[in-house]
Amino acid sequence: MIIKRASSLGFCYGVRLAHKKVIEALNKYQRVNTLGPLIHNEREVKRLAQLGAIPINSLDEVNAPAIVLRTHGVRRDVLESAKKLAIKEVIDATCPHVAKAQNIANRFYLDGFRVVILGEIEHPEVQSILSYAPNAIVVSENLQNFNFDKGIVKKVGLLSQTTQPIEKLKILAARLVELSQELVIANTVCFATRKRQEAARELAKEVDAIVVIGGKASSNTKKLYLSLSSYNVAVYQVEGAMDLPLDLLKYERIGITAGASTPEWIIEEVESRLKSL
Amino acid sequence: MIIKRASSLGFCYGVRLAHKKVIEALNKYQRVNTLGPLIHNEREVKRLAQLGAIPINSLDEVNAPAIVLRTHGVRRDVLESAKKLAIKEVIDATCPHVAKAQNIANRFYLDGFRVVILGEIEHPEVQSILSYAPNAIVVSENLQNFNFDKGIVKKVGLLSQTTQPIEKLKILAARLVELSQELVIANTVCFATRKRQEAARELAKEVDAIVVIGGKASSNTKKLYLSLSSYNVAVYQVEGAMDLPLDLLKYERIGITAGASTPEWIIEEVESRLKSL
Repeated sequence: MIIKRASSLGFCYGVRLAHKKVIEALNKYQRVNTLGPLIHNEREVKRLAQLGAIPINSLDEVNAPAIVLRTHGVRRDVLESAKKLAIKEVIDATCPHVAKAQNIANRFYLDGFRVVILGEIEHPEVQSILSYAPNAIVVSENLQNFNFDKGIVKKVGLLSQTTQPIEKLKILAARLVELSQELVIANTVCFATRKRQEAARELAKEVDAIVVIGGKASSNTKKLYLSLSSYNVAVYQVEGAMDLPLDLLKYERIGITAGASTPEWIIEEVESRLKSL
Repeated sequence: MIIKRASSLGFCYGVRLAHKKVIEALNKYQRVNTLGPLIHNEREVKRLAQLGAIPINSLDEVNAPAIVLRTHGVRRDVLESAKKLAIKEVIDATCPHVAKAQNIANRFYLDGFRVVILGEIEHPEVQSILSYAPNAIVVSENLQNFNFDKGIVKKVGLLSQTTQPIEKLKILAARLVELSQELVIANTVCFATRKRQEAARELAKEVDAIVVIGGKASSNTKKLYLSLSSYNVAVYQVEGAMDLPLDLLKYERIGITAGASTPEWIIEEVESRLKSL
């Protein structure tokens, strides 16, 4: 069996940065809280919890000298409340790309644009961006719930949740062109997501099956999986080595890729297990 | 034979306004010059010349107390030179929609955007817009000469020559989304062009043949003609009654439409001739 990794996989810049901040905070305070899971990878979040980074669901539950605000970003009011807590430090680990999307949404809002966000309304990142552009219209990735005001809108500002496919943003942009007099589009799609998708598709040409490693709640992992669906390759999504199906035994060449919140140790675990088959 | 007019045809707002300005100027000065043909309709331009509105090719040729700058707009430097002429009045008959496109192009340019204009580089309107956004990239309507700088551009400002089809602007917008960090799109496509195209397509469902009346040099007339090409109807483009083909005798129901620079008297001439068949 030949095992081949995608040329780009795993931790992206934002996750790597957040991860580093948590480790630094643990060295400094031994115990920290993270507001919600730091990233969409249950196993890594569990491992960090064992090291002392305890996830909490709301600010009321803080019981550590420092709190880390996670990569997806938090709502503006939550950030402000966090700053008022009687703790030693608030560590903002919002991904820089998400922070940029928040700032752009806010600028569009203040400049009087009707803001449109491409993304799933339940996604925490979308919720954080929304708090910077009240009353924004959220258009889900299937583009079906798109219910724009009737008639032409003067100024529309469009941006995207960072892990959306650029193709969806392009389709939505084209639709909005004729519904607006002036349309501002900020391409806030993160390059990392796209790079992993492109690398996975390249890999698909060279292997018989691909294993996509990532958390169940990870949006970008799901999209990585879906982006391979139209390729002539068998695709399996796993959270770790324990999910690897026996089915894989029938393939000669197996590719590995991983979402942006998948740590290197899980990728290695999967790779070792495959090699031992 | 049944003759049916499109619900929207002929002179648009900008042309009507320019025409009115020329007539008013003639009442005031008896003789005026127009810089280039006022509109893209040779026969109407000839008729106006007989009334005293003489087209000239450059400012050097001025020999009237007033000069009219035509609907397509003129280059910025030409406007400034015109204002310095030793004549009584410079009458700016630039279509308000074109003037808006010029202003937007200029704003994009001053705000540091890489300006992209959808249109044919030879079109006088594109030339006038270009003078307000030096070094803008002009993308022709076949979208084939699209040679954007490699790599991602930070700020791109897209606008359209006013008579381009909105569909082309949508396609170009979608392409530019992924080549830019921030893309501003001004939908400067004139509604009149679109309205005439939609009315013509509606008419296509009710008739066997459609006669499109307009000048040979009229871009919007050509597009009106092309927009009917995929419909199950015979289409003929004529400059006036003299061009009507005998072929039309075989049709029961004939539709009439006309470009934005086609005067009512030519439409009536064609209609009468058809009725007499």
